[in-house]
Amino acid sequence: MKDLPLGKVYQLIEPGPVVMLTTAQRGRADIMTMSWHMMVDFEPPLIACVVSEADYSFTALRATGECVIAIPAVGLAAKVVKVGNTSGRDIDKFAAFGLTKLPAEKVKAPLVAECFANIECRVTDTRLVNRYNLFLLEGVKAWIDPKQISPKTIHHRGYGTFVVDGETIKLKSKMP
Amino acid sequence: MKDLPLGKVYQLIEPGPVVMLTTAQRGRADIMTMSWHMMVDFEPPLIACVVSEADYSFTALRATGECVIAIPAVGLAAKVVKVGNTSGRDIDKFAAFGLTKLPAEKVKAPLVAECFANIECRVTDTRLVNRYNLFLLEGVKAWIDPKQISPKTIHHRGYGTFVVDGETIKLKSKMP
Repeated sequence: MKDLPLGKVYQLIEPGPVVMLTTAQRGRADIMTMSWHMMVDFEPPLIACVVSEADYSFTALRATGECVIAIPAVGLAAKVVKVGNTSGRDIDKFAAFGLTKLPAEKVKAPLVAECFANIECRVTDTRLVNRYNLFLLEGVKAWIDPKQISPKTIHHRGYGTFVVDGETIKLKSKMP
Repeated sequence: MKDLPLGKVYQLIEPGPVVMLTTAQRGRADIMTMSWHMMVDFEPPLIACVVSEADYSFTALRATGECVIAIPAVGLAAKVVKVGNTSGRDIDKFAAFGLTKLPAEKVKAPLVAECFANIECRVTDTRLVNRYNLFLLEGVKAWIDPKQISPKTIHHRGYGTFVVDGETIKLKSKMP
């Protein structure tokens, strides 16, 4: 994994890919699948996300205030769905689905070796957690896997239907 | 435009497409391009979005508490970028770029006839507006254009680079 400048994190999140979110509490790591997230600011990168209080990860995220957002390419789609279909209450999903934990630098939650990007995050605002399960995260360190060239991400349309990244177009824009 | 059940709105927003947001204040409509938005709840559909206080639309959105999220297919990409590159302070973007306003049913902001989906929204929570320009919207009425078959959306990767929807895959998921 190679350093990714924090100012580039939005380029990974803004397109809206399905991601996974890892947490760690009392030495036990967990991972969930997430599609409700967006950028809030460029740098430092602020990310909003919704983690349901029904999700096992909710407690760890709220208690530790730390997580990693790991972005999978389409080759991991089957594992991403398995992660989404199961709960850390019942199984160790990393072991069950062959996902490899790597130590992060600034948070206790692990990176996911198979993902092409990992963003270490700290919870910075919990004002909307009680009402909406909405967390504000700040990206404090980001990693990219240089061996995964032009990874295609997946976007969830509901009920296990995903659209995969297709062609790329470049238009003259003043927007960052 | 045909009715879309509100419970299906998340299927349009969750994949993370670039959208446009319309507002109307004192009889004058405006439109902007937006990529920072996410689902917060299924039904009624709650959507969070970030509209910068530097954007001309910010004032109208805050003052009227109403907007329409219009979702363009890839054929509109060039217009979407033009909308993003200009400000309603200077021009009437609908006229300048040949976008057609249609009256909405529950809000004063207009639908965009060329977009394959339109979601009429009301602002329901402004607690994070001052700090993050983050608005909570409730979708109150949604429309779909049945003449646009399997529209492909675009996803922004920064600086005018967009990835277009590619193939669709279906996996066995317990997630809605």
